[in-house]
Amino acid sequence: MGLWIETECGRLLVSPGEIAVVPQGFRFSIDLPDGDSRGYVAEIYGAHFQLPDLGPIGANGLAAPRDFLAPTAWFEEGLRPEYTIVQKFGGELFTAKQDFSPFNVVAWHGNYVPYKYDLQKFCPYNTVLVDHGDPSINTAPTDKPGVALLDFVIFPPRWLVAEHTFRPPYYHRNCMSEFMGLIYGAYEAKADGFLPGGASLHSCMTPHGPDTTTYEATIARVNAMAPSKLTGTMAFMFESALVPRVCHWALESPFLDHDYYQCWIGLKSHFSRIGLNETNAEQTEKKTEALE
Amino acid sequence: MGLWIETECGRLLVSPGEIAVVPQGFRFSIDLPDGDSRGYVAEIYGAHFQLPDLGPIGANGLAAPRDFLAPTAWFEEGLRPEYTIVQKFGGELFTAKQDFSPFNVVAWHGNYVPYKYDLQKFCPYNTVLVDHGDPSINTAPTDKPGVALLDFVIFPPRWLVAEHTFRPPYYHRNCMSEFMGLIYGAYEAKADGFLPGGASLHSCMTPHGPDTTTYEATIARVNAMAPSKLTGTMAFMFESALVPRVCHWALESPFLDHDYYQCWIGLKSHFSRIGLNETNAEQTEKKTEALE
Amino acid sequence: MGLWIETECGRLLVSPGEIAVVPQGFRFSIDLPDGDSRGYVAEIYGAHFQLPDLGPIGANGLAAPRDFLAPTAWFEEGLRPEYTIVQKFGGELFTAKQDFSPFNVVAWHGNYVPYKYDLQKFCPYNTVLVDHGDPSINTAPTDKPGVALLDFVIFPPRWLVAEHTFRPPYYHRNCMSEFMGLIYGAYEAKADGFLPGGASLHSCMTPHGPDTTTYEATIARVNAMAPSKLTGTMAFMFESALVPRVCHWALESPFLDHDYYQCWIGLKSHFSRIGLNETNAEQTEKKTEALE
Amino acid sequence: MGLWIETECGRLLVSPGEIAVVPQGFRFSIDLPDGDSRGYVAEIYGAHFQLPDLGPIGANGLAAPRDFLAPTAWFEEGLRPEYTIVQKFGGELFTAKQDFSPFNVVAWHGNYVPYKYDLQKFCPYNTVLVDHGDPSINTAPTDKPGVALLDFVIFPPRWLVAEHTFRPPYYHRNCMSEFMGLIYGAYEAKADGFLPGGASLHSCMTPHGPDTTTYEATIARVNAMAPSKLTGTMAFMFESALVPRVCHWALESPFLDHDYYQCWIGLKSHFSRIGLNETNAEQTEKKTEALE
Amino acid sequence: MGLWIETECGRLLVSPGEIAVVPQGFRFSIDLPDGDSRGYVAEIYGAHFQLPDLGPIGANGLAAPRDFLAPTAWFEEGLRPEYTIVQKFGGELFTAKQDFSPFNVVAWHGNYVPYKYDLQKFCPYNTVLVDHGDPSINTAPTDKPGVALLDFVIFPPRWLVAEHTFRPPYYHRNCMSEFMGLIYGAYEAKADGFLPGGASLHSCMTPHGPDTTTYEATIARVNAMAPSKLTGTMAFMFESALVPRVCHWALESPFLDHDYYQCWIGLKSHFSRIGLNETNAEQTEKKTEALE
Amino acid sequence: MGLWIETECGRLLVSPGEIAVVPQGFRFSIDLPDGDSRGYVAEIYGAHFQLPDLGPIGANGLAAPRDFLAPTAWFEEGLRPEYTIVQKFGGELFTAKQDFSPFNVVAWHGNYVPYKYDLQKFCPYNTVLVDHGDPSINTAPTDKPGVALLDFVIFPPRWLVAEHTFRPPYYHRNCMSEFMGLIYGAYEAKADGFLPGGASLHSCMTPHGPDTTTYEATIARVNAMAPSKLTGTMAFMFESALVPRVCHWALESPFLDHDYYQCWIGLKSHFSRIGLNETNAEQTEKKTEALE
Repeated sequence: MGLWIETECGRLLVSPGEIAVVPQGFRFSIDLPDGDSRGYVAEIYGAHFQLPDLGPIGANGLAAPRDFLAPTAWFEEGLRPEYTIVQKFGGELFTAKQDFSPFNVVAWHGNYVPYKYDLQKFCPYNTVLVDHGDPSINTAPTDKPGVALLDFVIFPPRWLVAEHTFRPPYYHRNCMSEFMGLIYGAYEAKADGFLPGGASLHSCMTPHGPDTTTYEATIARVNAMAPSKLTGTMAFMFESALVPRVCHWALESPFLDHDYYQCWIGLKSHFSRIGLNETNAEQTEKKTEALE
Repeated sequence: MGLWIETECGRLLVSPGEIAVVPQGFRFSIDLPDGDSRGYVAEIYGAHFQLPDLGPIGANGLAAPRDFLAPTAWFEEGLRPEYTIVQKFGGELFTAKQDFSPFNVVAWHGNYVPYKYDLQKFCPYNTVLVDHGDPSINTAPTDKPGVALLDFVIFPPRWLVAEHTFRPPYYHRNCMSEFMGLIYGAYEAKADGFLPGGASLHSCMTPHGPDTTTYEATIARVNAMAPSKLTGTMAFMFESALVPRVCHWALESPFLDHDYYQCWIGLKSHFSRIGLNETNAEQTEKKTEALE
Repeated sequence: MGLWIETECGRLLVSPGEIAVVPQGFRFSIDLPDGDSRGYVAEIYGAHFQLPDLGPIGANGLAAPRDFLAPTAWFEEGLRPEYTIVQKFGGELFTAKQDFSPFNVVAWHGNYVPYKYDLQKFCPYNTVLVDHGDPSINTAPTDKPGVALLDFVIFPPRWLVAEHTFRPPYYHRNCMSEFMGLIYGAYEAKADGFLPGGASLHSCMTPHGPDTTTYEATIARVNAMAPSKLTGTMAFMFESALVPRVCHWALESPFLDHDYYQCWIGLKSHFSRIGLNETNAEQTEKKTEALE
Repeated sequence: MGLWIETECGRLLVSPGEIAVVPQGFRFSIDLPDGDSRGYVAEIYGAHFQLPDLGPIGANGLAAPRDFLAPTAWFEEGLRPEYTIVQKFGGELFTAKQDFSPFNVVAWHGNYVPYKYDLQKFCPYNTVLVDHGDPSINTAPTDKPGVALLDFVIFPPRWLVAEHTFRPPYYHRNCMSEFMGLIYGAYEAKADGFLPGGASLHSCMTPHGPDTTTYEATIARVNAMAPSKLTGTMAFMFESALVPRVCHWALESPFLDHDYYQCWIGLKSHFSRIGLNETNAEQTEKKTEALE
Repeated sequence: MGLWIETECGRLLVSPGEIAVVPQGFRFSIDLPDGDSRGYVAEIYGAHFQLPDLGPIGANGLAAPRDFLAPTAWFEEGLRPEYTIVQKFGGELFTAKQDFSPFNVVAWHGNYVPYKYDLQKFCPYNTVLVDHGDPSINTAPTDKPGVALLDFVIFPPRWLVAEHTFRPPYYHRNCMSEFMGLIYGAYEAKADGFLPGGASLHSCMTPHGPDTTTYEATIARVNAMAPSKLTGTMAFMFESALVPRVCHWALESPFLDHDYYQCWIGLKSHFSRIGLNETNAEQTEKKTEALE
Repeated sequence: MGLWIETECGRLLVSPGEIAVVPQGFRFSIDLPDGDSRGYVAEIYGAHFQLPDLGPIGANGLAAPRDFLAPTAWFEEGLRPEYTIVQKFGGELFTAKQDFSPFNVVAWHGNYVPYKYDLQKFCPYNTVLVDHGDPSINTAPTDKPGVALLDFVIFPPRWLVAEHTFRPPYYHRNCMSEFMGLIYGAYEAKADGFLPGGASLHSCMTPHGPDTTTYEATIARVNAMAPSKLTGTMAFMFESALVPRVCHWALESPFLDHDYYQCWIGLKSHFSRIGLNETNAEQTEKKTEALE
């Protein structure tokens, strides 16, 4: 029920709700024991994924190294005539034939290996009083701190307890591009229209946020929110400092949502001048201030 | 009502529940407008306090720079005959007399200034699903990452939502020494005996943790805990890589708690071998394993 | 009189002799209250400008953080039908229409803001005895120390006191490309032909330096120079590790200076062998020496 | 007999078995006093070569800074009418004419200079007991530790003493591309077919290693190898994180070795299951293990 | 037969020729199953041991992480009346009594654990042609690169192949202090007098090197040395940036070697002026040279 | 005429106005060819002196590496009976006798050598328009950036051109201690009483600055200062993060200046409230402001 990924270091059984990483240069083959399957794949060049330094979170939390599982050595002996290897080089595919299995590695050591991770083992952190934070796994950083070749982020089941706070993701423009998918359940910031197996892409500096329905429902009770628990959901995000190019297959898909922007139609200002003790005209007179 | 701290950069009104920092070399005087007062003081040599890099917490959380308040410039002119300055140098106190106030700084710029912070503005982070984390402000690091000359840590009001988790601080031995105080309210890990204005010291590598009463009450319902909110409390900790020396005044105080260790009397093992599928004898046979 | 730059964080009045920076992703509009205007613009991708660490200069000098001015919050309410937003994405321009002003941000905090700086506030440093240095603002570094995506450098009014020294910029080849402009006054290294509003470009590793007139006038009195003060001038340089591509508009401009190289015609060697105690032939015999 | 390289900093006589480096931006001309010559050239953009930190090797070993030789200053005076300078800019060649020699630099200081190195001065390090290491000069690193814009590696004369070890380079796939040349002598891992003046290219992630003849001859006596000394040989490698593009001149050369892959034909498995105490079937049952 | 070290993470059987490390704060007890035992112990404060970055040695060599072995979890249940714990705090010993074993940790994870290492697994590196290097494990660095709180270094069996080289350790003065011991066999630089179980101490900046016998025997054949293999020996060194204080027990030991300095009596100069082409007088005239 | 410093790497002739550095562990002897001599000596433990990174100053300025001179090798052969070596170890002096000179090093390489520097070669940098900077050589940093074990700073001849600026050193308190000496000429901030050969010590956080006479003379013409050149002077400072302990010899010296503090008697406020548009009372009302 899942994928069998054969690699030179052994075989990984990857079930729905798990992720797997195959490092650069590995031979692998994927078997679908249950017939058709559906999932999300990202390929990066230039860096390996790594867990973030936990910083002030300290020793425990987010993704623990011990939950990343590598396979036991496994190998195939004997003749396998006309075994075809497909290799990607310089963006093109090449084939070679050989008469033995590439999965003939009897034993290995080191930590350059394929591995998998069950997303349910993630221990999310967030504010436990007020305000809004980012429960993310930051991975595969580029050379500039704070900018990533590809971050992998999840939105797992968790308690929401922030008080006097708009709890869904706030409206923002991002210097990175966000590709989002939903594995199962419902996503908190889109009241309708974002189904498991779907995906959204918000490119670099394109403003976005919750849909109108979610916004209005949330803002109405922002000062009276008890703890609530999100359950039975798993969304994720690929977030990249690079701008992804969308392929023809996706642009011409019958499932492309041409009306996506409509989810924000009807958003209106809730701002009230009450409590501001200056007119806008007075503000205009004020001079600029030093930025320390 | 608080302290008036006069400094060369202006005056700070520091109320209960606020902390103030006066950097090295500043002249200051403290006025107690309401008569007697009580508080906690730490003096460090070798580094300035600094806010931790938030790491995966991201942009918002813990102590925000904008909540640290510096005074407006304020100065005294004219003669102040026989004004006495007391200066600490090489661990001893020296006095000098002058006929003007040291608080005669008309204006200043830069960020080497005294400042204060209201502990209620702290935005605590913690797990929102399972397990146990450290809601701390890490400050004044020494040269070795992970080891601090003096960390300042608080335990403010917050929601507790960790499931299947022993929520109070776990039992531990620390390579740093922990000096703890309670400003108001009750502390979660000591069911009795830790009063506001009190202090505890657990030195380097001395094991400690919740008292027996707290432990037994908590462990009994560890798999059935709803969200609960700690309110009306503010405890703090000075945590240092140095081993503090306790002064005579404290050792001879009538308030010294000679029976402190009794809070752990009666702790007993809750461990059950059920579910372990090996005898201890079998374990002994197993050989050591490689540590990667 | 200057530019009015409206941004989501407020409005900046930028006068001649000032520079302004609008960070990535900001909406802005520019108003020219006095009709036509002329200036220099650089757009970079990949890093934000930052002030250099002052190094041995210490606490004071060059550009001070407190002289960079950010706007006061300012906003527009109400309907603005058919408001058109132009956005640059992937090198192309896109438009969107909305019925409200994008400048509707009521308040903000943080330091990701537009700002301006008056170049007259720059405090230049240089040798005060002999030799020749670089009075520069180093900004926006790339990942390699010493190499910049874009340095912004100015040549402001200042005293020249170096003795026994050729004071104008020396002849050099640069691994970075230099785009230079003159805002007002005269530039010290070009006796004629470099007017305010003009620009020069010396690409990577193209040798350049003062024109022949400046060189001959300077070298004649290099050992008898009293202090002199450059006044009433402001030149600047964009210096980049990237090689800029010149657009058609510039290449086909009637103002292109096809005879620029002529400013160096007539340069001649002032070298004299007197004082050298070896013939060239003897030199040739010497063997190479170790480079530690 | 060698090359005479004239540069603005002086002249280098570079003999066979020596390497020379001319930094970016230098004018140079090359004279072949003995007529035709043959050699290897690499041109890089983005970083300067540098010697590796020796790490645990300590103070002595590999290439010593004192063995890199820079020229003595040398210059040409007087008229040289119609002297033509060829400059590479943006990948294209440009020419300029002048009536004096560019090699007119009378004296200089600093360490941005051309230099040469005699490969025989290299002090190779390797295991002196068991196993297999990399005797390399690591140079010109890119921004990512462990990944190089261009490493320059040599295989000089040296003792081989590793016991119970397959001494030639092992079979591997490399995330960097390997361009290899042989200056004189024979290369240990190719029993035939790799001649002085030849070159091989193994691109990123293409598996390679010793030829079949070398492998079989070595594996037969792997447990009975006395110390042996490689003498009279000098091979080298350019190793780059970039994938080199092969030019038409090389692809259409009559010397291209179309049968290179044949050197590995006939490789066969020497693996024996004797001593393994599990069947493959049992292995398959084992579950994955945590990767710490 | 060895030591049994019981710890809270399990039990280590440490045999002669192995080393063990117990990290700060661990409870441990040591059992000598064979009666008396003899060994070397070092206690450090301030940092944990760590393997050096291999630098240009690359992926394989010196001590491999996989050869450091941690124990399997092991625990004691039930009553152990009057169990006495001895703890060191602030340089003094304290005792506490409890009625259960401290070795009651049922399971653990993390890598803060006791471990052991078999010195025979060390893969030494050295020159394979000429000159002299340091085959060391560098561990527990202080904050300054190149200076260690305590390095642990071994001199294991290995091939010596350096040609035209004085192979024993050269004469030197060290900014660190060297404490050396011999576990079994003979040490190459002391022809007599350094027995297994013995120890020598050469303090900071005290000159030392091989004894006279070793020196004369070696220098006589320095240009005619074939490969030779050191076998059946294991010496080690504790090398520290701190100056160790020698305790009374050692200073008053009947085994103290009062005549140690005699091993260098008789060393004489082998220097010959032949081949120097200047008199000392001429040298004196030369002026100092620039140090780049 | 100077000092002859004999070292194992050769002999240095150090003239007045030059400094010399002998690294840790070197044997040296000092000869005074002209009889009595007088100078300043500092001994540090823990780091070697190093030149500061020039930061925005760029390639040229302050102390240039090529001006630090190391000796040519020089040696003594033959018998020198009863040669006495004095060595400092652990703060005490030890002697040893030998029958040959320690200065018997025939040749050497590396850069761990004694060296000297002529202070007149220093190229001072400072503001060339307004304000006040630090013309310093920063050396021998401790582990914390900005804090030094010992900085060596000089005040050489230079032009003063800062306009609208109080040009002498401003009044300050320093977290480091300042030991100052005058080698020849007059020091700008003390109108009388600081003679060549003298020394002053301003300990950590002790306020100091120009004497009253200097202050009043300078402040009177602060807005009308033409360029002026300091000539014929050389003062220096040892500046340390450690607090120096003054020895008995100095405290009991007849040359101790018991009236030093008198140089500041008579300093008076020049502050005028004119131009301030608020009363002090109004100021007091203002609340504290956020410190970003």
